Order: sequence, then structure tokens, then C-alpha cells
Amino acid sequence: MTPPAAIEVTAVTDTEGVTLPDPLQANVKSNDIYGRRKKSEKNQWGVAAPADAKTFRHHKHGHKPSAKNWDHRLSKESASREGSSLKQAAKYLGKPGIISLGGGLPSSDYFPFESLEIKVPRIGHFSEQETKESGVVLHAGKHDLAEDKSIFDIATAFNYGQGRGSAQLLRWVTEHTEMVHNPPYSDWTCTMSIGSTSGLDIALRMFAERGDLILSEEYTFATAVETAAPMGVNVVGVPMDAEGMLPHSLDHILSTWDPVARGARKPFLVYTVPTGQNPTGATQGAARRRGIYAVAQKHDLYILEDEPYYFLQMQPYTGPNAPDVPPPASHDAFLKSLVPSLLSMDVDGRVMRLDSFSKVLAPGSRVGWITASEQVVARYSKHADVSTQGPSGISQLVLFKLLDEHFGHEGYLDWLIHIRLEYTKRRGVILEACEKYLPKEVVSWVPPMAGMFHWLRIDHTKHPSYPSRSITDIEDTLYLNIIEHNALMMKGSWFIPDKSVSPEALFLRATFCAASSENITEAIRRVGVAVRESFRLVEGKGEVVVEGNGNGVH
Amino acid sequence: MTPPAAIEVTAVTDTEGVTLPDPLQANVKSNDIYGRRKKSEKNQWGVAAPADAKTFRHHKHGHKPSAKNWDHRLSKESASREGSSLKQAAKYLGKPGIISLGGGLPSSDYFPFESLEIKVPRIGHFSEQETKESGVVLHAGKHDLAEDKSIFDIATAFNYGQGRGSAQLLRWVTEHTEMVHNPPYSDWTCTMSIGSTSGLDIALRMFAERGDLILSEEYTFATAVETAAPMGVNVVGVPMDAEGMLPHSLDHILSTWDPVARGARKPFLVYTVPTGQNPTGATQGAARRRGIYAVAQKHDLYILEDEPYYFLQMQPYTGPNAPDVPPPASHDAFLKSLVPSLLSMDVDGRVMRLDSFSKVLAPGSRVGWITASEQVVARYSKHADVSTQGPSGISQLVLFKLLDEHFGHEGYLDWLIHIRLEYTKRRGVILEACEKYLPKEVVSWVPPMAGMFHWLRIDHTKHPSYPSRSITDIEDTLYLNIIEHNALMMKGSWFIPDKSVSPEALFLRATFCAASSENITEAIRRVGVAVRESFRLVEGKGEVVVEGNGNGVH
Repeated sequence: MTPPAAIEVTAVTDTEGVTLPDPLQANVKSNDIYGRRKKSEKNQWGVAAPADAKTFRHHKHGHKPSAKNWDHRLSKESASREGSSLKQAAKYLGKPGIISLGGGLPSSDYFPFESLEIKVPRIGHFSEQETKESGVVLHAGKHDLAEDKSIFDIATAFNYGQGRGSAQLLRWVTEHTEMVHNPPYSDWTCTMSIGSTSGLDIALRMFAERGDLILSEEYTFATAVETAAPMGVNVVGVPMDAEGMLPHSLDHILSTWDPVARGARKPFLVYTVPTGQNPTGATQGAARRRGIYAVAQKHDLYILEDEPYYFLQMQPYTGPNAPDVPPPASHDAFLKSLVPSLLSMDVDGRVMRLDSFSKVLAPGSRVGWITASEQVVARYSKHADVSTQGPSGISQLVLFKLLDEHFGHEGYLDWLIHIRLEYTKRRGVILEACEKYLPKEVVSWVPPMAGMFHWLRIDHTKHPSYPSRSITDIEDTLYLNIIEHNALMMKGSWFIPDKSVSPEALFLRATFCAASSENITEAIRRVGVAVRESFRLVEGKGEVVVEGNGNGVH
Repeated sequence: MTPPAAIEVTAVTDTEGVTLPDPLQANVKSNDIYGRRKKSEKNQWGVAAPADAKTFRHHKHGHKPSAKNWDHRLSKESASREGSSLKQAAKYLGKPGIISLGGGLPSSDYFPFESLEIKVPRIGHFSEQETKESGVVLHAGKHDLAEDKSIFDIATAFNYGQGRGSAQLLRWVTEHTEMVHNPPYSDWTCTMSIGSTSGLDIALRMFAERGDLILSEEYTFATAVETAAPMGVNVVGVPMDAEGMLPHSLDHILSTWDPVARGARKPFLVYTVPTGQNPTGATQGAARRRGIYAVAQKHDLYILEDEPYYFLQMQPYTGPNAPDVPPPASHDAFLKSLVPSLLSMDVDGRVMRLDSFSKVLAPGSRVGWITASEQVVARYSKHADVSTQGPSGISQLVLFKLLDEHFGHEGYLDWLIHIRLEYTKRRGVILEACEKYLPKEVVSWVPPMAGMFHWLRIDHTKHPSYPSRSITDIEDTLYLNIIEHNALMMKGSWFIPDKSVSPEALFLRATFCAASSENITEAIRRVGVAVRESFRLVEGKGEVVVEGNGNGVH
């Protein structure tokens, strides 16, 4: 990993010099959405009704180009995927007066659930304590749809659904996606996923064949590598700095690709986490993203933009003793503060964006969504139809009640600002502890702008056993030494996608998302003690105290 | 499809003449389970805690054989699957006093949910109306686990989980599986699935390679065929009768397999729906199952036993005017009335059973489970860890509240008996309508013993255009003619796995699971009119009435 480059944020310009519509200027204003919604046909809300996200978009995008066709990139599996023969019968369901003895959908008479209620925060009163004291109870009845009380209910949500998800929740995520990203091509659409882990699994099976290599960051999400490996798909790490993947390195790898020496055809699939990357915490600035997109255009790449941490972009870091930056003054200011997504600059439809509710609402919902061109979404949802199906209907009903009927788009932005400020506080805690307890002569870091992770670089050359012992050896000793001192961090080398590559530096990954402030501070203090011990440094501020008073939060 | 054979139910004897323990004799009695449960360590219930179903089994099974090893049957993908490197760190989480900055699990502080409540039936008062009037409200709080109010709560269920599912619900399904099936080998275990569609997708990727053929019924679940096809895996249909797959036909296909002529290695994977098969409604009797298992042993087959309809086994059919058979007098009598599963006779551990809550609770839960040997379950759950993950935590919490804390195993058996009687009534309605309205000179059927489907055989040789027009041609005309008369059924030919095979007979599939009794009767009356019209029969009982008064239930 090379040192961080300066982060430039410039006007959104595509790589051929044509100025694109500023996605934030062209944004759908969230407060327009509800008034603009068309009164939909009731049959779109019915049991296992097919949903089409295109019908939920506001802009007609007549002036925008269509997405490129990706036939030449599809795997044998995906290219040969056909629709369901039984669904041929569905077209007759709309015939007036018809009685169907066709589809094997159980009757809701036998769902042993009469109602579901959730207590959730009042908008603007988001803390756990406030929710307990002043939360709102949202109610879903069994037959609310038939009784015209709601467009979603237990009889519908708890029955079978489509791979694309329910129209009810799909409408909401489509509107949200248009508001935040406004993709600059005409035939973009959305489909629900059961989370981005599954989204990546399906995407790899759509685009990769056994023996292929794909591209990702030099340090990358270990689960992504482990998803791909059994498919016979391995990951080439692209050099990165504190802003993530380096476009010129990506270009260099592809321009000099030798299929014989590499034992694989030239890669075309890029897996990237542009914001708050796992494990490095790196966030690609707007210019960096445009650089990566330009290389993708040059080499006809397809990009999987995995963005679980997009809304964990924090307030600007001002240092340990400076006053905080005031929170965004408006929803517009908040949306403008976000780094533009690759999706928002995707004129070709070469990006599949994976969004997730896991980091901003609750991972256990197992609900996320995919945004891509209609061709790619159609392949994706056909795959889902015969494997994952759509997300849990119980989860979809809970999220619909919260997001559509209660928060609305405006209230959800308020919630996201709340989360932003909370993560900003947590980052402040870990950075303050690092400043206080870690020996700067050995440990260095770049304050993360987004996400859950803080990435510590340890100068292995200062270790008394270096170079007689290898970096991974020193890493292992340090890792275990930290555990002896009753703290746990992840080894940087676990995130190197190609296990045959020896690391050139030593890193540790810490997360500030889970433990309490007190425990974060105490854990970092212990890490400081362990590093000093390992590196035989003179004890500084982090004096030795009795261990074992932290709890086992994980 | 050959004519139905007599259904024999004989003593459970394995194929080598050794009497196996009667699974129902050896059954765990449900009312023992709660008293027997060990007080589990609290950390098993915690956030993303690993769960091991073996710890929830009662019988130690010291006297039972171990499962066979299936290394020689695993696909390249599954054989090469390795565990997660990050999980290496998990072993330290139990260290007293350790503070983890390791795993990126979001804090439940930021889950905007304070409580969840569901209103469900009082045991024994199961109808929708009774539930509305006298249902019980079950409550889940955010921190019930920490506050010792429950072993499952929002803070836990709504966070990340393991691919195997939560220990809380996994315990319940393991106990239920032991009670009902009591597998006769020692190292069986369970893992949660996100439903059997996904279960089959994963199983095929575990056991099949591109170019393989697998075995299934001559008419089979179309989605199964469509799941396999894009993987390059096609299905060979095995001849069947009204009791499903014929063991001697299965044996014949395998014994005479010519890899060159077939263009594929000899198959070893059998996909079967033994109970209330989709589309034929066929249920394999105990002797039939033992016959299939014996062939599996002879040819070293691995069986995927897909059993969504197992608890839709109905009361014995007594005919249109005979009195009903009284409901099971006890839970024991109910369990004894069920056809024994392939799992219950699986001495070798060669069966992966797929169970689902879709047909007995609610499909939208997307929760099911897998029972197989530990080796196979470990491969399955490693696959799930990097793709589907476990089921929705929201669904798991809802089901745990209903099944474990409210119904209990006894109450759930009561619920299943309720469903059994309801489906018995529905079957009565469709059979009565068929007796009344369908022309017997052309249409014949076997009353289904289980499931959701009624399979009608149409004697195509009586059609005025036969043999000048093909069976599929006549089928298509009849199908459309039924639609003209405002009823919808599925074409039998859609369920033929190999599209190059021409059907030898004409079938229609009707479901009695969804429409109301009145609509079922009216739809069958319309089918009768359409068949008479197509076959130019003299109008019998089904006189022509005005169409279009049914509603569009589907």
C-alpha cells in the first residue's frame, strides 16, 4: 500500500470531457416522492405479484443513453438461464372472473399470524433510550390489503413472493436509489437481494467461469475471496493507497496482461468497496472513482460496487482537540456531502451496485438490493427465482412499515444523519485512544472517512527480530501478544486475496462499530502495551494496569 | 406413468433383512423434550454465536453406525471449499475479559426496533376467526437475553448470524427432527436453510458437475429442473406410478447405463419428493421408500429428499358418501399415521432431507432446514456462510416465539393435526366436484394422500382429433379451452424434465390449496364443461351456466 494521495473533489465530468448532469442537482427531492407516486393498480400489491422497478421511477430519462449489452461477459450458466415454464400460466391470472387452480400458493387461512407490531423510534428521537420511552408502534394486520388499510399485510408478505421482492418495498428502494444516485443511463432498475453476500455470490456466477481471475483491492473483504475461490475464481489484488484502488495500477495490470504467464484470460470483473473499504477503511474520492471508471471504459470492465458502508460516511475529521464540524444543515446538504457513487457516474450501465440495510438498520433483516441495467437485473432475478428467492416476507413487511409508512424518505435521511453522527463519535473515540496510547514511532494510521474500520500500519522494520523473522511471523507474534493482553484485532494478512503473496507491510484491523466507548479505549490501551512489549519500546503513556476488567463484547 | 400399484405398509425392515429399530417406537416423546433440555451456556445464544445441532440431540446413538463418507461424490466446488480465515479469531472470544475490536458486527444501539409482537392462535383454537378473537400476543424485547427474559431477542436476532442459523431455532428443529424421524445413524445433524429452493440449489452445487445427469420422477417439480439446467445438469425422469418413483425402473436405468450413449457418467444423485409429489400428488408408501433406498444402496446413490408436503398427509380417503375417519386420537397416533421418511430408514447417511415451514406455517418466512450427516451439513453450511447466510433473523425470532416459547412441540403437533384436517376437507371438496362434474369416460384420477395437488389423467385417445394431432397439441387446446371457460390448471407436460421427451399421456394439475371451497367446486365444473366441449361429449351433469362469477383467487 502506497502513501495516501491528496483527495480531490472536482466537478463530475466523464472521461471524454462531456459534462454529465450533476447527480445531486438532478436529484429527485425526497419530499416530492410521495406526492408524485402514481396510484398503482391494486394487483401489483397482491400475493406473489410480479414487480417491476421501472414503474417506480420518476424520471423518464428519454435523453439518457441505454446501457451497453453484456452478453459477451455472461457466464455459460447465466447465458443459458431461461424463465420458468410455470410462469407462462400467470398471464391468465388477470382474466376477469377466472378461478385459478394453477399455482401452489398456500391459503393465508393457515398462516398462524393475526397481526405483527413493531415499536420503532419517533422521527428525530432516534436513540435507544428515546425509542423505549417515546417510540411509535407500527401495526400490520393479516388482511390490511383487502380491507384497504395498507398496501402490504401478513396475508401477502407471509406468502410466496417473487425473486425481485415485493413491489411494496421495491418501490421504496427504487425511489431512494433515484434520489441518491440518479444513474445517468436510461434503463437502470432495481431488484431485491437477500443481502450483499448473496448478491456477490450470484454476480460471480453470472459473470465468471472456473479459471477466471477477477480484480479487487490489494487488501480486500475476505468473505468475497472465499465466495469466489470454490468456484475456481481467484482474485488479483490491485495496489491501493488511503483512497483505495489506484487507477493507474489497475490500467497497468490490464494493459500488460499476459494470459499465458497468468494462466487466465484478461480479467474484466472488478469487485470494489469504494467507501470505508473493508479492511483498510479507505474511501475513494470522486476523482478516484472517475479514474477507476475511465479504466473500466478503456478495458471494457464490469464493476461490482459493493457499498454496505456508503451511509457510514462520517463528518470531516478535525483532529483530537478541534471543535466538531456542525451536522449537515439540510437533507440536500447531507446528500451533497456524500462522495458520488460509481453508479451515479455510470453512463454505460457497467456497474452493478450492491446496497444493504445491514449496517444502517439491521443485518438480521437479510434484505438488500441490486441496481444495474435491466438486462443484468433480469439475469440476476431469474437466478434468484430458482435459488434464494426474494428476501423474507416477514423482513420485507417490517422494513416497509418502518421505511415507507413511518419514516418516509425524509425521515430515513434523518435516521441516516443520526447514524452518521454516531459513527463520527465512535471514530473520535478510537482515534483519541490511538493518539493517547499507541507508540507513534511504530504505529501509524489515516483517520477513516467512512465505515467501521480503523487500519493500523505497524512498522515491522522497527521490530527487534526483523529481518531475521518474516513479516507474517512478526504479525502472528504481535496478534497473539495483543490477545494475551486481552484485546482482539484482525491480522492484516488475512485480507490479502492471493495467499501466495507475501505482505510488504504489517497491518492490523480494528473496528469501532461494536464495543462501547470505554471498551474501545481500554482495548486500544492494551494494544499499546502489547506493541511496546513486542517491539521492546520504553513504556510511554500506556502504563501497565491490571487486565481482565473488560467484558467480552464482540 | 403406469397404473397405480397397491400401497403396502409393512414393518420397517432394511433391505438386507435386518430389522431396524422402528423409528416411531424409538421416538423421543415430545413431552419429554423440555424437561430433558440441558441448561445451555448463555454464550450459545449470543450475537452470531456458532450453533451445533448435535448438542441438541437427546439420544447419544452410541449403538448406531456412522454415516458413510461422501468425498467421492462432492463437486470440485464443494470439495475445495475452505472455512473462513476470519473465523480463526472467533476462538478467542471466549477468553475471560477480552475486548474484541475484531468482528465488524454493528452495535444493536443502532437497530431502530425496540420490540416486536405477533398475535398468534391459542393452542387448539387455530382458525383464523378464533385467532382474531382469542389469539395470544407474543412479545420480543430488544434486550430480553441480557435481561434474562428470554434466550432470544431483537439485539441478537436482528444482528448477523451464522450460516447454520441461530442456536435458538436450530435447537427446536433438531428436537422436532429427532422426534419425527430419529435417523438410524449416529452423526446426523441439522442446519437451517433459507427454504428448500435454495437448499436444492446448494445441494446441486455440492454434488453435481456441469454435464452430469441426475435422477427424478418422470413428472417432477419444474423449478428443480430449472435450478439444475443453467448449471449444465439435466434430469432423467424415472418411470412412476401413483406411488411415485418405481424402484425397478430406477435400478434398470442405472444397471443398463451406457455413458457413451447417454453422454454422461452414471448418475448418483436422486431428487425425489416422496410425499404428495409435485405435480402428481403421488405418495411413496413405506415399502416403496425401502425399495428406492435399496436401489440407492446397490448403486451408491445419494438422495435429496425434498419434503415440503410431509405434514400435508391427509386422513384416509373414504369416498364421497362414506363417513370421515376420526382424527388421530393422540400425538403418538398422529406420528404413527405418517409414512416413514427416507431419513428414518437411512442407515448409511445417504439422504439429505429438505424440510420447510412454507406449507405448514408461512412461505414468506423463508426458513427451512436440512438434515444430513455432519460431513454433508458442514459442506452445506460453509456454502451458506459465503452466499445465502442463515435465514432472516426477524423470521427466526418470529418462529422461535411461536414454536418454542408458545406452541412447544406438543402444540405444534396439534397445529399440524389441524392443518391435516383442513387439507382433508379441501381434498374432499375437489374430489366431490370431480365426481360430480367431470366426464369419467375421459378423466380419471387417484385420490391424493398428501400435498396440494390433484392430478387428472385425460384419455387423449378419446379425443376426436387423435391421433392426427399430437398429445401436446390436444393438451394445449384443452388448456386454452379451460381458460376460455374461466378456470386455470397447469399442463402436465410442463413437468416433464426432459423437454425432448414426448408425453405418452395427457395430464392436468389442479391445486386445492388456495381457492375457497366454492371456487374449487365452480372451477372443476367449468373444467368439466371445457373437457366435454373439447372431446365433443354429450352434456352430462355439468350443464352450461353463465360464466364469470368466480373471483380471481390465485
